[in-house]
Amino acid sequence: MAIIDGKALAEIIKLEIREEVLRLKEAKQNIPHLAAVLIGNNPASESYVKSKVRSCEHVGYESTLIRKDDSITEEELLDIVKDLNEEEDIDGFIVQLPLPDHIDDSKITLAIDPKKDVDGFHPVNFGRMAQGLPCYLPATPFGIMTMLERHKIETEGKHCLVLGRSNIVGSPMSILLSRKAYPGNCTVTLAHSRTKDLTAETLRADIIIAAIGIPNFVSGDMVKEGVVVIDVGINRVEDSSKRRGYRLVGDVDYDSVMPKASFITPVPGGVGPMTVTSLLLNTLRASKKEIYT
Amino acid sequence: MAIIDGKALAEIIKLEIREEVLRLKEAKQNIPHLAAVLIGNNPASESYVKSKVRSCEHVGYESTLIRKDDSITEEELLDIVKDLNEEEDIDGFIVQLPLPDHIDDSKITLAIDPKKDVDGFHPVNFGRMAQGLPCYLPATPFGIMTMLERHKIETEGKHCLVLGRSNIVGSPMSILLSRKAYPGNCTVTLAHSRTKDLTAETLRADIIIAAIGIPNFVSGDMVKEGVVVIDVGINRVEDSSKRRGYRLVGDVDYDSVMPKASFITPVPGGVGPMTVTSLLLNTLRASKKEIYT
Repeated sequence: MAIIDGKALAEIIKLEIREEVLRLKEAKQNIPHLAAVLIGNNPASESYVKSKVRSCEHVGYESTLIRKDDSITEEELLDIVKDLNEEEDIDGFIVQLPLPDHIDDSKITLAIDPKKDVDGFHPVNFGRMAQGLPCYLPATPFGIMTMLERHKIETEGKHCLVLGRSNIVGSPMSILLSRKAYPGNCTVTLAHSRTKDLTAETLRADIIIAAIGIPNFVSGDMVKEGVVVIDVGINRVEDSSKRRGYRLVGDVDYDSVMPKASFITPVPGGVGPMTVTSLLLNTLRASKKEIYT
Repeated sequence: MAIIDGKALAEIIKLEIREEVLRLKEAKQNIPHLAAVLIGNNPASESYVKSKVRSCEHVGYESTLIRKDDSITEEELLDIVKDLNEEEDIDGFIVQLPLPDHIDDSKITLAIDPKKDVDGFHPVNFGRMAQGLPCYLPATPFGIMTMLERHKIETEGKHCLVLGRSNIVGSPMSILLSRKAYPGNCTVTLAHSRTKDLTAETLRADIIIAAIGIPNFVSGDMVKEGVVVIDVGINRVEDSSKRRGYRLVGDVDYDSVMPKASFITPVPGGVGPMTVTSLLLNTLRASKKEIYT
């Protein structure tokens, strides 16, 4: 059994990126520049954005943080997006979701130039991914693919169960693992809230990607020996023994599943740290114009 | 057991479209206008395009056929696409694939304005489909969804097996049947050439979408009683008893599967006729600016 240490892998990749940035600096080439737009004071969003900006600094990227009060109008935010689309000095940018209720998330996402959409949320990037064309992969799926690849986990012909059909994790994971490539060539089943007899599905899976947002949902008696488990869940459960009053758990009951798994990601410290790394990699690709010219 | 008569259903839908066009004419509104670009003399392509143009005339659309010799350069074809993108009078257009070897299919597809991409092949439309946004669905998946809907086939919680992961059929079908909608809410497994023990997959499926291009591949002993079978295959097999020397068969061995199926599509006369209908429906939506303004 091997625990996939996402935190350690993320550090290794950041080191590789840092070295690449040093080479770019020496060669007097374009240094990647990421901008992040943060609206309002949602503490989770604030912490995510800060961590992204900090990671940029860590690897030597330029970064720009644009903060606006949540009284901003949709029109004003669209103007910011338009400026960032046009600003030649910015290679890629993200608008941290969720946005205030009076702003349509999807309208903002669609306004971002796909060339600078380093979150990989624009339909153009999603469609290109599905059609096997060069694109920015969405952060979490990209992180998971990197984990599978770096740990040389066999995927061809394996039965993979994806739990959850969200646009940002489940649905793209099912597409990526189905495609004719490595990691990929899995027989993928996409399961969700309407799936009947979910245990029958988990029991036959060689690889489980759990992304349903239910704490400790997948238990040891639901999986077979040797399963590879990627736990995307980040759920808060009450815990009076912790100073903050809660602890973070995944969608997988780690203690009971771990002894049966050949590979498993912990929560925290598994998939989570890899998402920022994906953003950095996408920004690097953007600055090198690898995907779009 | 019910045979899903695609030919009859396509006729019904064309009649509905024809009535709608008459209403549009009476109200002096915009009449849908489809253009088709045909390069070279591939007999199959020629026959498809002719059937599309004929269908347009049949329902009262305006249509334009642009024929070019296969000596056309990529640059020249891109110019034609550009003109069609800009021509206000054209609501939607298709460039019949495959194109001659010296032209990059994907480059042409990407050059089509997504607003006029009534084939639903552009990544923007694919991505919007996957993200549940309004879009033009690709013709064959749209036709299959229409069949399931018009025949009121239950899909929620059913186990659906999609055989084949092509960009134009298998992959989009797996997405559409997974989504939270009707038809949809299936637990979908996407299988392909690298899938091991395919019979285990077919035996547990409530719904099978066969799109692998192997004549008579799915046989009666591979399916369970009551299965719904949608056969997308159109394969030529030699048949000296036919004047043209071949007959058309699907990916499903009709004779052995039919007695066990609750619903089944024949070949020919099943999915095939529905694809032109999808194109007409997309063109109607384009002319009404239902998807893009």
